[in-house]
Amino acid sequence: MGLEIESNHLLSNIAVNGKHGENSAYFDGWKAYERDPFHPKNNPQGVIQMGLAENQLCFDLIEEWIRNHPEASICTPEGLRHFRDVAIFQDYHGLPKFRKGVANFMSKARGGKVKFDEDRILMSGGATGANELVMFCLADPGDAFLIPAPYYPAFPRDLCWRTRAQIIPVHCDSSNNFKITRAALEAAYVKAQEDKVNVKGLLITNPSNPLGTTLDRETLKSVVQFINENNIHLVCDEIYAATVFNSSSFVSISEIIQDMEFCNKDLIHIVYSLSKDMGLPGFRVGIVYSNSDKVVNNGRKMSSFGLVSSQTQHMLAEMLSDDDFVEKYLAESSRRLAQRHSVFTKGLEKVGIACLPSNAGLFCWMNLRSMLKEQTLEGEMMLWRMIVDDVKLNVSPGSSFNCLEPGWFRVCFANMDEETVDVAVKRIQDFVGKETKKPVKGKNDQGLNLRVSFSSRRFDETVLSSPQMISPHSSAHSPLVKAT
Amino acid sequence: MGLEIESNHLLSNIAVNGKHGENSAYFDGWKAYERDPFHPKNNPQGVIQMGLAENQLCFDLIEEWIRNHPEASICTPEGLRHFRDVAIFQDYHGLPKFRKGVANFMSKARGGKVKFDEDRILMSGGATGANELVMFCLADPGDAFLIPAPYYPAFPRDLCWRTRAQIIPVHCDSSNNFKITRAALEAAYVKAQEDKVNVKGLLITNPSNPLGTTLDRETLKSVVQFINENNIHLVCDEIYAATVFNSSSFVSISEIIQDMEFCNKDLIHIVYSLSKDMGLPGFRVGIVYSNSDKVVNNGRKMSSFGLVSSQTQHMLAEMLSDDDFVEKYLAESSRRLAQRHSVFTKGLEKVGIACLPSNAGLFCWMNLRSMLKEQTLEGEMMLWRMIVDDVKLNVSPGSSFNCLEPGWFRVCFANMDEETVDVAVKRIQDFVGKETKKPVKGKNDQGLNLRVSFSSRRFDETVLSSPQMISPHSSAHSPLVKAT
Repeated sequence: MGLEIESNHLLSNIAVNGKHGENSAYFDGWKAYERDPFHPKNNPQGVIQMGLAENQLCFDLIEEWIRNHPEASICTPEGLRHFRDVAIFQDYHGLPKFRKGVANFMSKARGGKVKFDEDRILMSGGATGANELVMFCLADPGDAFLIPAPYYPAFPRDLCWRTRAQIIPVHCDSSNNFKITRAALEAAYVKAQEDKVNVKGLLITNPSNPLGTTLDRETLKSVVQFINENNIHLVCDEIYAATVFNSSSFVSISEIIQDMEFCNKDLIHIVYSLSKDMGLPGFRVGIVYSNSDKVVNNGRKMSSFGLVSSQTQHMLAEMLSDDDFVEKYLAESSRRLAQRHSVFTKGLEKVGIACLPSNAGLFCWMNLRSMLKEQTLEGEMMLWRMIVDDVKLNVSPGSSFNCLEPGWFRVCFANMDEETVDVAVKRIQDFVGKETKKPVKGKNDQGLNLRVSFSSRRFDETVLSSPQMISPHSSAHSPLVKAT
Repeated sequence: MGLEIESNHLLSNIAVNGKHGENSAYFDGWKAYERDPFHPKNNPQGVIQMGLAENQLCFDLIEEWIRNHPEASICTPEGLRHFRDVAIFQDYHGLPKFRKGVANFMSKARGGKVKFDEDRILMSGGATGANELVMFCLADPGDAFLIPAPYYPAFPRDLCWRTRAQIIPVHCDSSNNFKITRAALEAAYVKAQEDKVNVKGLLITNPSNPLGTTLDRETLKSVVQFINENNIHLVCDEIYAATVFNSSSFVSISEIIQDMEFCNKDLIHIVYSLSKDMGLPGFRVGIVYSNSDKVVNNGRKMSSFGLVSSQTQHMLAEMLSDDDFVEKYLAESSRRLAQRHSVFTKGLEKVGIACLPSNAGLFCWMNLRSMLKEQTLEGEMMLWRMIVDDVKLNVSPGSSFNCLEPGWFRVCFANMDEETVDVAVKRIQDFVGKETKKPVKGKNDQGLNLRVSFSSRRFDETVLSSPQMISPHSSAHSPLVKAT
């Protein structure tokens, strides 16, 4: 044990401080799924994974394109002649045609209303790497970014862990459908100044994860005015841009600033990715698009740490430059997401469960307040445990998104086939039916099958408390294997 | 200008402090090449790129394997059925079969004398990402690693830039063929302690870049004893393991510690990559192999920032698990490197130029001391300028590897075809012939065509001093496009 303690001191503070932020129920829910994954035939009583924001609805279109374009791969007889040039390519600017393709796709995913300059596109390892890169460029240790909450549970890892920056949540609530207000931003900013915290910027997610909503033009303008007046940065996470499914109403920050007269564009940066809009998280395509020459210049150097495989760049360059394909893909993806959203939310409505009205994303923000035993985050966790353990659905509790208002849950619906969605909806309906039939009084006793000893065992506690689990052999089954 | 200065302050210290370490002649030489690249027919008088440690000698073998294994790619009719599973895969453990393939290749690249546990293999974005990852795990800001010099010019970027750690060079010289001695390590360590610097470890590169030499068993044992006695880490950069070309004499640190009785293995970590040994830098496969469970566990989480594209993992998994291919590739690659090394060094010997005796690497460490106008690093830079500007060879001066002894140059020979090597050798021979025919006195005047106003214009100075150059449009032609 002496050696153990000593060796702990030999690691960096970052490595042992647990601030990777992965100790949340969001990731914890993975374990339940991994222990007992649903399969329609082999394990029909298993846990259905609804904690994963994956877009699996349009793979057939991508596969069709690949089948028709063997020359785009360096591993086919038609494309092998490019193998050498591609295999040695490690330019941190990225293949020119790849940046061009990405710029083209980004524009089309925003309805063609804005153009993107391919020379402002920086590569990184997924949105995870893009988030970290932009923070390394903008924030020193201790500096803070305001972030409207609820927000993506892995932001602490992406934005703060290795950069040593910090997040200041700007809490939003259901009184106005979780909209960001100027007043809330001001309050958080003033409070930070009083606390002597150096606020370097504001990060917004549009469309929102977990809300599935888009920011309207007025809110965006107000946000730009806010950051301009305070001379702080604005990072816009637009990784769900093409998941808008019921209208062409999505407004990119790029559209706002091209129309604004007084705006320091150097302060505005976009994080993008192909993980959600194209459903290709495995390919690790993260993008930082900055309007600041300095950020482009310095961020480019940081790209060295997270270049996209040249094999992948080469293939995607062709695909994303194919206008016919991109337009067809975006339209069809939007249509299928709308349909899936409709099926899912209507299923919930049948038993009186409402979701926040939304028009984007791969998930719903489900309101289960009425089912809470007590209106606290503890009550939310108790309900969550029941949903995971008994209903066998891995959904994500609002608290893991830093939502202070108890009773909200993010439920993903685009990472499964129709049959599985039907099973999931049926399980929720049965659960709600069963619960609502119980006498009201029963809600406060064992009738709800609440675990007497409620324990939100967290990833790190588990890993760090049992020596065997420290071995990499067993960490292969960590709940984070597909953290999204 | 007011806005300009202000916006500079808005960026992080890292983004503007220039400590990415890329302001060296190593990278500067790229510019000369990019302005005027050699082509046998189109530009036979152009600059030949000998500053790039690329291994392009065995692409035919890899291409043959790919042609015979269409099922290994997700972009062929034979492999497309795996597309979905691969495209969504973003597990930070990596595909199990990929880790298995890498472990297999690592073992075979070390003569099969050691086995590697696939569960200790961490992925990262190239060796660049692997270097940074291991430093983030081991060092806090201000902490130092001892590194025998001469060393890889991009270590400051990889190891220190974003981690804020520091390098303490342990200077080696030609008196003992640049060998690392216990005395030199001790001296550097004691000096650091006197300076109140917290030394967290020692990093060695074996085979050495730029020396092309391998460390013998006794030296390795001595190194392990040194780090054990001081309870500091040992990071072994073995990215050139399979480039050993004239014997099976390479000894991995893994082999040493499996035979040592008293050794805290938790202190020992290997950085590996497929960029040199397989010649696939574009694929961004970096590996950290750690014997410490804690580093594996924490480093795994950091893999999120630099996962290898699942498309690339999938293909390499098959290739690296094919024993027949791997064995044939390693033997043939070694044979071709030996031949290339022999042709090159014999060409130099003809005009009396010696290289440090070496048995590995994609380069020679060429001794031009006798040609220096003055025995200083300034003299070295003057000679380097002549070689780049007049002889039209981009070689790398020793000073860019932090070598204090003037007159050494790294010359890469495996990133070109035979005809180009012949042209390069001929140019060196002509240059030396011309220089040695001059009267000795002439060496000190304009006869040597030395630039009156010697200027080692550096990448950053150029970029930062001219506003136009800040634009990403022109940075597309930076000398760093293929920094290796």
